[in-house]
Amino acid sequence: MPEAYPHGLKTLTPGNTIVEALNILGPGFRLVPLDGSSPYVRPKAAMYDFNGKERRWDVVESHSSVGVILYHRELDAWVIVRQFRPAVYATLLREAEAAGKPKPPFSAAFTYELCAGLIDKSKSNAEICQEEILEECGFRVPLEGIREVAVGIASAGTQGSPHIMYYAEASGGWRLAVDSSMAVAGAGGGLVGHGECIEVLALPFHHCQPFVLDGSLPKSPGLMFGLTWAYFNKLNGSLGGRPAAAKEEAEAANGNPLLTEELTLRPVLPA
Amino acid sequence: MPEAYPHGLKTLTPGNTIVEALNILGPGFRLVPLDGSSPYVRPKAAMYDFNGKERRWDVVESHSSVGVILYHRELDAWVIVRQFRPAVYATLLREAEAAGKPKPPFSAAFTYELCAGLIDKSKSNAEICQEEILEECGFRVPLEGIREVAVGIASAGTQGSPHIMYYAEASGGWRLAVDSSMAVAGAGGGLVGHGECIEVLALPFHHCQPFVLDGSLPKSPGLMFGLTWAYFNKLNGSLGGRPAAAKEEAEAANGNPLLTEELTLRPVLPA
Repeated sequence: MPEAYPHGLKTLTPGNTIVEALNILGPGFRLVPLDGSSPYVRPKAAMYDFNGKERRWDVVESHSSVGVILYHRELDAWVIVRQFRPAVYATLLREAEAAGKPKPPFSAAFTYELCAGLIDKSKSNAEICQEEILEECGFRVPLEGIREVAVGIASAGTQGSPHIMYYAEASGGWRLAVDSSMAVAGAGGGLVGHGECIEVLALPFHHCQPFVLDGSLPKSPGLMFGLTWAYFNKLNGSLGGRPAAAKEEAEAANGNPLLTEELTLRPVLPA
Repeated sequence: MPEAYPHGLKTLTPGNTIVEALNILGPGFRLVPLDGSSPYVRPKAAMYDFNGKERRWDVVESHSSVGVILYHRELDAWVIVRQFRPAVYATLLREAEAAGKPKPPFSAAFTYELCAGLIDKSKSNAEICQEEILEECGFRVPLEGIREVAVGIASAGTQGSPHIMYYAEASGGWRLAVDSSMAVAGAGGGLVGHGECIEVLALPFHHCQPFVLDGSLPKSPGLMFGLTWAYFNKLNGSLGGRPAAAKEEAEAANGNPLLTEELTLRPVLPA
């Protein structure tokens, strides 16, 4: 399934890829009425007065969240995640049915996103980011290296929940025995037993904009903003250094060897 | 209410501003259970098989939409909209209640967004963009000047609906008798009688990034991506020309006179 890795994308989670996920997914997919007891989707009607008349606007309560723009120095790549999103598939299915077209493949509903998490713990946002970077992507990054960038309001029309975006860098190299940014073999990826299958991907630095602008790849607006902002700020030198120019030239000629060789990942998380 | 216009924002819709909207809003705001018949918010449970087990993911059906990154040449400014979003207020209210804080002001729920609209007509997306630019912002832009930039998936976790983003430029100047980009006095802004009050704002070109990164101002991720992408591409010269350098220098020294004088707007829409 080579088309699953366009724009130089390289999986960082062998054993937990879109290929594996597609093998354990389906075939059944159906939508049933919600019984009203969902902890995730709580529809309400907001009633308010406007110009002397009562107005109604239907809303959905949802959680606030954090997202992390993650750059890996030795890989000279953005670290992003991809997972199956039932809501995206439901939309594609509805559109296909309306147009009289066949069911779309599940692969069309694997969405590219920033490493992210809900703000539903009594921890600081930076701590939640740190935890998500470790759990989803398998990198330990220092708390002081996580800085707030901006805040987006997700689906202002219906949800209106803040999505707070952070920037962090992983570093230390893949092959050092002891460092602060080792990847976890087979981790990142969430818990398959919990119905999660999150693939972690490295996107080479300079492939950022062709990837973001490729409308055929489903991705979150948070990722689109975050990568675009960080790409131009890194180009301008206002967001820390990138790998040395010599390495960059070699990479332009030959590709980053860390991104083309097989990666050897070492577990650092407790089993 | 000077704090309503930070980062050099200038209203383009006198008579339809946040000040007016706040005067006709409230005081009542309450959330009631949704009766299940909403055409806007349709919660469902998606049932699917993953790793041999049946999984459930709660989703909300919603419409696909278009958004337009709009740059006005003579103003050398981004044209964006701001409106009261009940879903944003409901979230702020819930958070304030959970934290034992007083009710937030309504002004905190006026969200900055791209000119946008739902894809719910039998027209091309470019035609819907053209219509929204005229109805919401009061500019006539030629269809061939509207080009697709990128696609974001809104709220992949719960909604998963495509938000297709376009770029367009308005031009012609404010004071020409006949042109293709006149603003409509008091228009833009939607229909107050329908409970809408959309303020159209000009954001000076170079205030783009401080504005986008100001976490105290609620704004959509689509706007954040769109303005950031267009800003850097215009700086790089890869997105058409900006006003002549001489004008730019004068502006840096004195501000753009079109953005500091009172604007005289002429109606072009049918009454």
